[in-house]
Amino acid sequence: MPIFEDLVAAYRTLAEHGVIDAYGHVSMRSPQNPQRYFIARALAPEVVQVEDIMEYDLDSVPLEERGRESVRERFIHGEVYKARPEVMAVVHNHSPSVIPFSVTGVPMRPIYHMAAFIGEGVPNFEIRKFEKGTDLLVKSPKLGKALAKTLGKAPASLMRGHGAVVVGENIARAVGRSVYLEQSAQLQMQALLLGSKVTYLDKAEVKASVPLQDYKRAWPMWREKALAKAKADRK
Amino acid sequence: MPIFEDLVAAYRTLAEHGVIDAYGHVSMRSPQNPQRYFIARALAPEVVQVEDIMEYDLDSVPLEERGRESVRERFIHGEVYKARPEVMAVVHNHSPSVIPFSVTGVPMRPIYHMAAFIGEGVPNFEIRKFEKGTDLLVKSPKLGKALAKTLGKAPASLMRGHGAVVVGENIARAVGRSVYLEQSAQLQMQALLLGSKVTYLDKAEVKASVPLQDYKRAWPMWREKALAKAKADRK
Amino acid sequence: MPIFEDLVAAYRTLAEHGVIDAYGHVSMRSPQNPQRYFIARALAPEVVQVEDIMEYDLDSVPLEERGRESVRERFIHGEVYKARPEVMAVVHNHSPSVIPFSVTGVPMRPIYHMAAFIGEGVPNFEIRKFEKGTDLLVKSPKLGKALAKTLGKAPASLMRGHGAVVVGENIARAVGRSVYLEQSAQLQMQALLLGSKVTYLDKAEVKASVPLQDYKRAWPMWREKALAKAKADRK
Amino acid sequence: MPIFEDLVAAYRTLAEHGVIDAYGHVSMRSPQNPQRYFIARALAPEVVQVEDIMEYDLDSVPLEERGRESVRERFIHGEVYKARPEVMAVVHNHSPSVIPFSVTGVPMRPIYHMAAFIGEGVPNFEIRKFEKGTDLLVKSPKLGKALAKTLGKAPASLMRGHGAVVVGENIARAVGRSVYLEQSAQLQMQALLLGSKVTYLDKAEVKASVPLQDYKRAWPMWREKALAKAKADRK
Repeated sequence: MPIFEDLVAAYRTLAEHGVIDAYGHVSMRSPQNPQRYFIARALAPEVVQVEDIMEYDLDSVPLEERGRESVRERFIHGEVYKARPEVMAVVHNHSPSVIPFSVTGVPMRPIYHMAAFIGEGVPNFEIRKFEKGTDLLVKSPKLGKALAKTLGKAPASLMRGHGAVVVGENIARAVGRSVYLEQSAQLQMQALLLGSKVTYLDKAEVKASVPLQDYKRAWPMWREKALAKAKADRK
Repeated sequence: MPIFEDLVAAYRTLAEHGVIDAYGHVSMRSPQNPQRYFIARALAPEVVQVEDIMEYDLDSVPLEERGRESVRERFIHGEVYKARPEVMAVVHNHSPSVIPFSVTGVPMRPIYHMAAFIGEGVPNFEIRKFEKGTDLLVKSPKLGKALAKTLGKAPASLMRGHGAVVVGENIARAVGRSVYLEQSAQLQMQALLLGSKVTYLDKAEVKASVPLQDYKRAWPMWREKALAKAKADRK
Repeated sequence: MPIFEDLVAAYRTLAEHGVIDAYGHVSMRSPQNPQRYFIARALAPEVVQVEDIMEYDLDSVPLEERGRESVRERFIHGEVYKARPEVMAVVHNHSPSVIPFSVTGVPMRPIYHMAAFIGEGVPNFEIRKFEKGTDLLVKSPKLGKALAKTLGKAPASLMRGHGAVVVGENIARAVGRSVYLEQSAQLQMQALLLGSKVTYLDKAEVKASVPLQDYKRAWPMWREKALAKAKADRK
Repeated sequence: MPIFEDLVAAYRTLAEHGVIDAYGHVSMRSPQNPQRYFIARALAPEVVQVEDIMEYDLDSVPLEERGRESVRERFIHGEVYKARPEVMAVVHNHSPSVIPFSVTGVPMRPIYHMAAFIGEGVPNFEIRKFEKGTDLLVKSPKLGKALAKTLGKAPASLMRGHGAVVVGENIARAVGRSVYLEQSAQLQMQALLLGSKVTYLDKAEVKASVPLQDYKRAWPMWREKALAKAKADRK
């Protein structure tokens, strides 16, 4: 299926940019059936190939397991797809520069146009409000629903002491937003250390920027590089 | 045309140094006709080849479009060439370490000789002064003119919440200044965190440093590496 | 011996992640004889091959020296294996981001789930308490015992002005903990600069996270890449 | 001459570690004639080959110029060799993390054993004390002598708004010290931001550490990698 190549490219691009480590994952909603999504089996993102992609229903039950191990946090994906019909792609990561924001209560703000979507609001998911004493993993439908509720209509949500979830109406947008959320966190941290007053994008600027921002100049280049690498890895 | 190779090398060198992401661009004024400039079509810098270079007049109208997409912010280039007859090369980037300066009002200062040109003054373009509610992109002649006016006679101008524009009398200087503007921003940030008082280059030192600084030991090496990569990419 | 490949992979993975420089080392307790351990001869980690692995008793006396030079700080390994029967792998490194914590008395805390083990406590070894005027190297049984005592039952101990020792019940855990101890130090530093109050994992979260955390999705991928590189290096 | 390979390896190793950019240089005193030294012609360090090495007397006059361009700051090397008979290798760099120390008056201190030599004192060369209005380059015998005087008996000297000079009794030590001076600056900056009080190596620890510290486990590995790259570059 051609979208499997998109998904392989997404996994590898995010790993290449340092946005996901061995434990992150990306999914795409099935274009044929909105009640299904695709995600890789439990495997390090940088080695994912098309044959590692599995199909799930929105309760995150695998359709054809064939002995393959599912990622434990797949409920993030299933529950977000239930709650957000327009979302076609979901990324879960441990984006390093985002973690300090998730544990300090300092809100992420839209510091530059490349991450203007932050101006639509990026909430922070505190898992303790929903379950105490967890290992922080969203590994049940209940926690997935709680995260989807925290996310609300936002383009992304931080996850306290854990990472982030990022969504998009297409894979280019979900991947691009993940890459620029990480960089935006770095820049905001630096700006806050540098100056006493930081000028963020205003509401009108956010509104003017977000609708068109599909990262469509970056994505085809990222995709091509990632698939060339995937092909080379087979040899 | 031989300068097309310079331009390909400039795109790829800036990408390699992390100074431009998928959305930056570099142009060169035509040596044959000062009323023309060359710039790549809308494409990620790290994959630019000679056949991607397009020609524009100074109103940024393409001479031979042939279905190729122009970059939306080409007006930066055309309007700077109009305002600055001595400028032969222009870089527009989202230089990461420069962004925090652009949003805090902390002025960039000449911290070391490699970026002595900062001592000639680096203004900050606030797009809101000229148009409210934009997506921050300089995508009209009007905004291009406003940016060129903010730049004035300076070697570079920051762009609030966006990046920078950097100019030079030749391509080596425009590329070298872009690379060292980024590093200078990193070092100044660190110095400001480290010490209460920072010693910058004084006026006489700036004046003694800038005229000769053409980055001519770096440029041929960068160029050769970039063109070798461009050649390898064709295979 | 198959575990020699694990050890080669561990050396190279830690070098690749910037966790050990030319002077770090990793050891594994012999699965056949708990009174023996394996470690590479004095050699830069990124070039270690299986034939560089030597065997030692727990007093850190080599069994078959054959003219090969032993690392001077091998006593770290021997004495930790004596004191901690459950430990099967030990890493000693100069993990860069950990050094600032070792010299400031700022305690490392569990900032995210990937390094939840920090919540079990990470002490700081001050060599001056045991011997004055050293070159900071743990190059005697006496200093090795002192370090093992400071480590106690913890998963890791910092070493003031020097680096860290990290242990695990298997090689995946010792390597994974080393990689994430370094990243956790970076993130905690950033969080402390960013916010006045940092929320760490609570005790129940630490207790829920640590037992299962074997870095088993990362380790096979790291191992495969490292061994492929080791093989390529022979050519 | 075999030491030419050492010198090629030194240039390329320092470039690989980000310690020198296109404008740094390394020299070695001739083992045959202490009144001579070797250094590469004006060329980016990462592309230096044995045929690029030139010979100079201690007044920095080239013996066989053959149309090759000399580096303008060669007087750093000649004057240090005059003043310090035991010194056999000299590095001049724009080590990035060192620059902020050079412009703030914050003294570098020995934060970890790998850069214990800092404990012998690292002065800061203020060129303005010797000549006003320069481009900061040490491009005359007079300025070279002034720098050598500031350096005194120290292992290294910062150069305000410019970089550093680092010396050693052999090439391994000069290169190793350059690599770890850069990292030490990073770590000290972080420690100063992290904690109100930093514990440095004490005098006895410095004295115990420095004499033996020749970076001899790192150097052969760096050298081999660099020469393999130099060989590959010829193809």
